[in-house]
Amino acid sequence: MNMVELIAKKREGLAYSADEIAYIINGYTDGSIPDYQMSAWAMAVFFQGMTPEETAELTMAMARSGEQLDLSSIPGVKVDKHSTGGVGDKTTLVVAPLVAAAGIPVAKMSGRGLGFSGGTIDKLESFAGFQTELSREQFLAQVRDVGLAIIGQSGKLTPADKKLYALRDVTATVESVPLIASSIMSKKIAAGADAIILDVKVGKGAFMKTRQQALHLARAMVQIGRNVGRETIAVISDMNQPLGYAVGNALEVKEAIATLSGQGPKDVEELALTIGARMLLLAGKEADLASAYRRLQTLLHDGSALAKLADMVKAQGGDPTHVFQPEHLPEAPYKLQLAAPRAGYLAQIDAELVGHAAVLLGAGRVTKESPIDLSVGILLNKKVDDAVEKGETIAEIQANDKNKAEMALKKLENAIKIIDDPTNPPTLIYDIVSAS
Amino acid sequence: MNMVELIAKKREGLAYSADEIAYIINGYTDGSIPDYQMSAWAMAVFFQGMTPEETAELTMAMARSGEQLDLSSIPGVKVDKHSTGGVGDKTTLVVAPLVAAAGIPVAKMSGRGLGFSGGTIDKLESFAGFQTELSREQFLAQVRDVGLAIIGQSGKLTPADKKLYALRDVTATVESVPLIASSIMSKKIAAGADAIILDVKVGKGAFMKTRQQALHLARAMVQIGRNVGRETIAVISDMNQPLGYAVGNALEVKEAIATLSGQGPKDVEELALTIGARMLLLAGKEADLASAYRRLQTLLHDGSALAKLADMVKAQGGDPTHVFQPEHLPEAPYKLQLAAPRAGYLAQIDAELVGHAAVLLGAGRVTKESPIDLSVGILLNKKVDDAVEKGETIAEIQANDKNKAEMALKKLENAIKIIDDPTNPPTLIYDIVSAS
Repeated sequence: MNMVELIAKKREGLAYSADEIAYIINGYTDGSIPDYQMSAWAMAVFFQGMTPEETAELTMAMARSGEQLDLSSIPGVKVDKHSTGGVGDKTTLVVAPLVAAAGIPVAKMSGRGLGFSGGTIDKLESFAGFQTELSREQFLAQVRDVGLAIIGQSGKLTPADKKLYALRDVTATVESVPLIASSIMSKKIAAGADAIILDVKVGKGAFMKTRQQALHLARAMVQIGRNVGRETIAVISDMNQPLGYAVGNALEVKEAIATLSGQGPKDVEELALTIGARMLLLAGKEADLASAYRRLQTLLHDGSALAKLADMVKAQGGDPTHVFQPEHLPEAPYKLQLAAPRAGYLAQIDAELVGHAAVLLGAGRVTKESPIDLSVGILLNKKVDDAVEKGETIAEIQANDKNKAEMALKKLENAIKIIDDPTNPPTLIYDIVSAS
Repeated sequence: MNMVELIAKKREGLAYSADEIAYIINGYTDGSIPDYQMSAWAMAVFFQGMTPEETAELTMAMARSGEQLDLSSIPGVKVDKHSTGGVGDKTTLVVAPLVAAAGIPVAKMSGRGLGFSGGTIDKLESFAGFQTELSREQFLAQVRDVGLAIIGQSGKLTPADKKLYALRDVTATVESVPLIASSIMSKKIAAGADAIILDVKVGKGAFMKTRQQALHLARAMVQIGRNVGRETIAVISDMNQPLGYAVGNALEVKEAIATLSGQGPKDVEELALTIGARMLLLAGKEADLASAYRRLQTLLHDGSALAKLADMVKAQGGDPTHVFQPEHLPEAPYKLQLAAPRAGYLAQIDAELVGHAAVLLGAGRVTKESPIDLSVGILLNKKVDDAVEKGETIAEIQANDKNKAEMALKKLENAIKIIDDPTNPPTLIYDIVSAS
């Protein structure tokens, strides 16, 4: 085989065999295929696409390109959850303890935030002393003992995906559904998932801007799951406005704790239950959705879910009492309110602009190397379609720096739109895509 | 400007401004834009194409990327001739002395052969001692004194094109009309051409396999010429069978000498006159085609054209008597005949296979670094549509090695097809494309 001929083959719209895909991914991983061929290949894939079979082969070739986590020592079906990223998305912080409390073993690797999209690992570091790096043995032992562990992504998984993603980022070849879908799925499979639930965000604060794009990506990932024997369900959820009210690391942890106590925002709880219930079904812990929802609601209200979070925080070196007294979590001292400039109904709280405002405060990273400030963020007081009086507080900025707070306030002003009459309340869950 | 955004712009099918094209070409030439971005860009261009205006800007940006030859010290309109390459294509060896004899100054840079496509510079080295590298001053002085000089391409012209072509060659992005057209035209413009005549070969032994493809390329180059103020005419000529009877370096020089003596193969003479007559018009040396043809025919038959070749050979260090006694040119000792396996009419002499047979003998290069054997080649005895008797010689292989001769014979056998009845004689000139 010869990479020039393989690029030409895709350029002409032909499909690869499994061997050809393995040749490309192995060659790129070991460096025998150079970046300049791989980027031309990625652009040809952008234009010509890939069949479901090719996409599945690509996923598995990338999953096999490095270490693969073996979770077989943990009994039961291991269900992994992934979000395509959004603003105020603390769903994993709720779902992971919740389903663990229901008896599903959760051995999760999560990412850090970049740009206006937050990361679970950053958020967990709001618990002082929380260790996000465990050895493989510690990680597996904790899942067996506690039923729940969340750590940072191992650098040794899917090196092919890492290398290819970095290349796509600088060659305008990110926006290709088979490449996005295989990138996400390869990481979940290498991390040992038996089944996968995906939260595909759509809207102003998400990578996918239209429901059509989100559906296309969701279907591609569900199809990969079917082709590689990992049952996969995708939830398509709204990211036009932030999820919940809190945006910022410690602020989101507090909102997750409230949700785990049965006192969270309606949308956060609804999304967590939608995802969690399907995880119970995927794991074979419940036979139907109605009983799965009931079970999870019980666990939110009887303290079990919150206790599971405290168990994990303790096991990973944090202070579990902070779970029950979240006022000990970091909080920024400087507060600035955004007052409604007029009375009416909120027609828009632009998630991307709120995300940018949070980045300005230091809650997010501009580049992978940027430090972040766990204490700062934005606490919304309203959701889209809520009524406001003139001068009423719409949001509170929590900052460590007056100048930054004022810059963030300007961004926030642009994120908000108030109109005279109520609109329809926004949809939270647009679609659920599954293989059957 | 930012290369990632510029790649995305082309990917989305948008057209670049002149400044954007200059940014890309200058950045690639100076190394600030890396290969991996340029190859993704080239693939995006492959799919989205370029407008005539973009293609013209690209051409000029590449022409300006290195040294540019200033021919203004030579009086008159400098007309350059370029062939897209074929098998047995000795047209430059005929046309250059012919139009120089008619008073057009010919300051020509030519290439070497690669694969089954020959190169004028290799062929000229059949004259022992012939210097293909002259200083710029020597080159210009010879054109002023003799009216004709042919040298190898300067390594300092169009570095952007050289770098980009080498990259396209290994990234399956060669086959893009705007990239091919701008590559050819940029070299001609950097070499100082005021007007350009292009011989676009089409058929089995050419890069362009269909008349449609050839027309598309020809029109793109003529359009570039119009947009950058260099009048350009393209001749689309047949390359299904080799041009003339001779394939191989010294063999082709002998056939060119015969043609310059008015005794060449009909097709070689016809193509040379078709191109040469239009060069006289482009240079303003004749007012109409009929008188241009008459003038050139006179020069072929009164010895002037051949004398001009001898003058050039002498000026560049070769022995001019070899022009008049071509039996002194290199000749391989081992001869092997291809006999007709049956009687009938020749339906095919596949130019690509004949070219491959010549490469097997050592007449062509497998890689840029391969040495070549000037003495070897194939002398056809027939053209397509000629009648043959069973056992009659169709071609003679001239080799330095019996094994290679036998390998070449096998290739040649596959190149030939004999049928019962005569077909229509093949067309030599399919189209002439000009701006008006």
